[in-house]
Amino acid sequence: MSSIGKDLRKILSSEQVLDLPEDVSAYANDATFYVAKKNPDAVVFPASTEEISSIIKYAASNKIPVVPRGAGSGLAGGCTPVHGGIVIDMKRINKIIEIDQKNLVAVVESGLVLEKFVKTVEGMKLFYPPDPQSAEVCTIGGNIATRAGGPRGVKYGTTERYVTGIEVVMPNGDVINPGGRFVKQSSGYDLTHLFTGSEGTLGVITKGILRLLPLPPAKKTIVVTCVSADQAAEIVSEIIARGAVPAVLEFLIKLAVMAINGYLTPPIPLTGEAYLLMEVDGNEAQVELESEEIKAVCNELGAVDIRIVTDKAECETYWYARSRLYPLMTTIFKRVITEDITVPRNKIPELVKAMQAISTSVGIGIGIAGHAGDGNMHPTILQSEVSEEVARKADKAIEEMIKVCLELQGTISGEHGIGIHKSSFLELEHGPKQVEIMKSIKRTLDPLGIMNPGKIWKENGGKA
Amino acid sequence: MSSIGKDLRKILSSEQVLDLPEDVSAYANDATFYVAKKNPDAVVFPASTEEISSIIKYAASNKIPVVPRGAGSGLAGGCTPVHGGIVIDMKRINKIIEIDQKNLVAVVESGLVLEKFVKTVEGMKLFYPPDPQSAEVCTIGGNIATRAGGPRGVKYGTTERYVTGIEVVMPNGDVINPGGRFVKQSSGYDLTHLFTGSEGTLGVITKGILRLLPLPPAKKTIVVTCVSADQAAEIVSEIIARGAVPAVLEFLIKLAVMAINGYLTPPIPLTGEAYLLMEVDGNEAQVELESEEIKAVCNELGAVDIRIVTDKAECETYWYARSRLYPLMTTIFKRVITEDITVPRNKIPELVKAMQAISTSVGIGIGIAGHAGDGNMHPTILQSEVSEEVARKADKAIEEMIKVCLELQGTISGEHGIGIHKSSFLELEHGPKQVEIMKSIKRTLDPLGIMNPGKIWKENGGKA
Repeated sequence: MSSIGKDLRKILSSEQVLDLPEDVSAYANDATFYVAKKNPDAVVFPASTEEISSIIKYAASNKIPVVPRGAGSGLAGGCTPVHGGIVIDMKRINKIIEIDQKNLVAVVESGLVLEKFVKTVEGMKLFYPPDPQSAEVCTIGGNIATRAGGPRGVKYGTTERYVTGIEVVMPNGDVINPGGRFVKQSSGYDLTHLFTGSEGTLGVITKGILRLLPLPPAKKTIVVTCVSADQAAEIVSEIIARGAVPAVLEFLIKLAVMAINGYLTPPIPLTGEAYLLMEVDGNEAQVELESEEIKAVCNELGAVDIRIVTDKAECETYWYARSRLYPLMTTIFKRVITEDITVPRNKIPELVKAMQAISTSVGIGIGIAGHAGDGNMHPTILQSEVSEEVARKADKAIEEMIKVCLELQGTISGEHGIGIHKSSFLELEHGPKQVEIMKSIKRTLDPLGIMNPGKIWKENGGKA
Repeated sequence: MSSIGKDLRKILSSEQVLDLPEDVSAYANDATFYVAKKNPDAVVFPASTEEISSIIKYAASNKIPVVPRGAGSGLAGGCTPVHGGIVIDMKRINKIIEIDQKNLVAVVESGLVLEKFVKTVEGMKLFYPPDPQSAEVCTIGGNIATRAGGPRGVKYGTTERYVTGIEVVMPNGDVINPGGRFVKQSSGYDLTHLFTGSEGTLGVITKGILRLLPLPPAKKTIVVTCVSADQAAEIVSEIIARGAVPAVLEFLIKLAVMAINGYLTPPIPLTGEAYLLMEVDGNEAQVELESEEIKAVCNELGAVDIRIVTDKAECETYWYARSRLYPLMTTIFKRVITEDITVPRNKIPELVKAMQAISTSVGIGIGIAGHAGDGNMHPTILQSEVSEEVARKADKAIEEMIKVCLELQGTISGEHGIGIHKSSFLELEHGPKQVEIMKSIKRTLDPLGIMNPGKIWKENGGKA
């Protein structure tokens, strides 16, 4: 039994603490396999905000690193304990405290699994739009900590738009409650959104107050085959300019459609180079009107094919197929790294061309798919073998991608966060002055540097 | 000529500096007449970010307070130079740098008058939703600094939802550019929204990158006469729950309708105690559908009267009349103080009753109107004479209102900001720990304390 484990058992019950190497090794990493693993000294499973506060007070007294963890489904190494210390597994703190139907607001604990929450509110004809692909496992707290997004970002925005208040355990153990259950506030600094997206480096988010929408009663799926990525981008811009904004607007290259066609009857005809997969939602009349408008745009701009699907079960086959793309890649390739760059919407064709050029020059496969409506693309680096040489090529490809993304006035992460994976690129995007401002805020709120050290920017930690 | 004025003339041209008492006295206050005036030592009219950077470097070297000022239309004393120093009038920095129609983004300088911007983008069939009542004069920079809102908040949210990036001159003269022209970002701390709403206390916002929407082609105005405030609140909740969210959803008590009826032909019949004034927008079909849905809700819940107005010119008469309410009050009463409290939407009836009780117990008139859809009410304290006794009563009424608002889980400002006017109440809302966090961020980013001192929380400045 480690001394940290021994101490923690004085604060928590025995079954809330793990510290044997064989137990803690599952917490040495998240879904970001390409980041070096590091065992924590202990993993704790608190059941209340008060317990978290006690753990953090103990950690602060002993300058022990603290790493909050949701489902560990992150793709940036955000909850890898690079300096060891205590991993706080949040999954026991998972209640829906209240769903306030009159005010369209929910109060939830941050270990709550997103899909459970979404299903619960849907049962009440309510709608919580953020939809990261990891919805089955990821937690609301993890979503808030990373400003998680998903395909619906184009119409509905990402997690930060739905967070109106939070509860946070600060790095000294204090509990604060910025924001509230109101939809507008101009009272002091916006601490709620400073913590949102801070990746566990400023405190532990223990509760969220979340805005809900009425559940749109109708949906249609639209599949558009385009001659080229340029044409697809033009169609996307024109659709949005006309105000017929789909709830989901995905871009796929031909290769991606080939991959998912196995799930589709009939398959999408491979008569184009780029594909758009859309979902329009709203009331019946609105969905009818918007799908007609989208059809008109596609016809005017010369799309090869437009398929409008109304049957609910058939619609779902498309979205199921789309969700299989990443898992499918991981069965075909030994390793797949999903990038998360975001550019202004009309720069997507340039981005696609640049990705293809990088693939050729570096000599590594790159798949291209993403959320075309909001410019957030997820190029996937496809590694058919695990070797140092291939890893070097992957690193090179990522570096080149990030440079291109910034040249196109983009951001290096749209919805995954920086974590360790992209910490060495933060300054490329923000410049040294902005990074120093971020660091100064970190030092002010966490003077001992115990909260999730080694993340967001390169410090002692870095890529470990 | 003051020594500060003399120094500033070395940095700027002569006509960019005012320092005679008769010239600077116009800058001793903003629209918040009930806050004590204080002349600045000098007022400057920079024409570029570089000039602002030079002014701030000079101010930092000499520890001189700096107060950024848009139109001075604020209602919280946010740009009153309580410690003297240099007022930076931003109105010469007023260009629309770019309107990017493909990405629905505009880049503007912060001295730009809101209405000029709105009219320009409307000419391109684009839409910038924030609509504070001061739109004719207020500036985009002031809007960002206060998270300005307006009636459209219920459907469209307030300024912070439209700010995707900013340029800021920091308290040491450094220029930074957080955010960008993308619609999602999970890359480092959200500095953009830390500065948004910081009321000039962390730096001078010199540019904004603003999200635009396609201009909704159709509109209707709906006037609903309700038996009571309870019924009005019930109707509001039910309309929003059904997803027929109006762009504007105003609540007026009978007294307010009596006041504006002079502008309306025919006048609104005074057959109810509470009134809802709505605007639905979107495409033709959507507007038709939503207004039918709203009508159905009003009928089901027993509203006294529903008037749906389609004619554009007639619609405008209602909104013109609504916009006259505050000016009208100022002609009837010697002084009118507009409050800005926000509560969860379904608490409005309780708030209205509490306001009426406060009016009786304190012995001062209180008008009640506001943005019912988002819970942001603007009770107006109506003073028929200017005397110390009446001023004391007004203060008492404000204090009581704020207590009630917080008991109802509200926020003390929905869209005006804290400034000086409500600085003594900040801690009541946020508690000492959160206020200390805000102060610590302030000290970190502005260690000399030169940026708009005496605002947001009570320090040396306070109510001056």
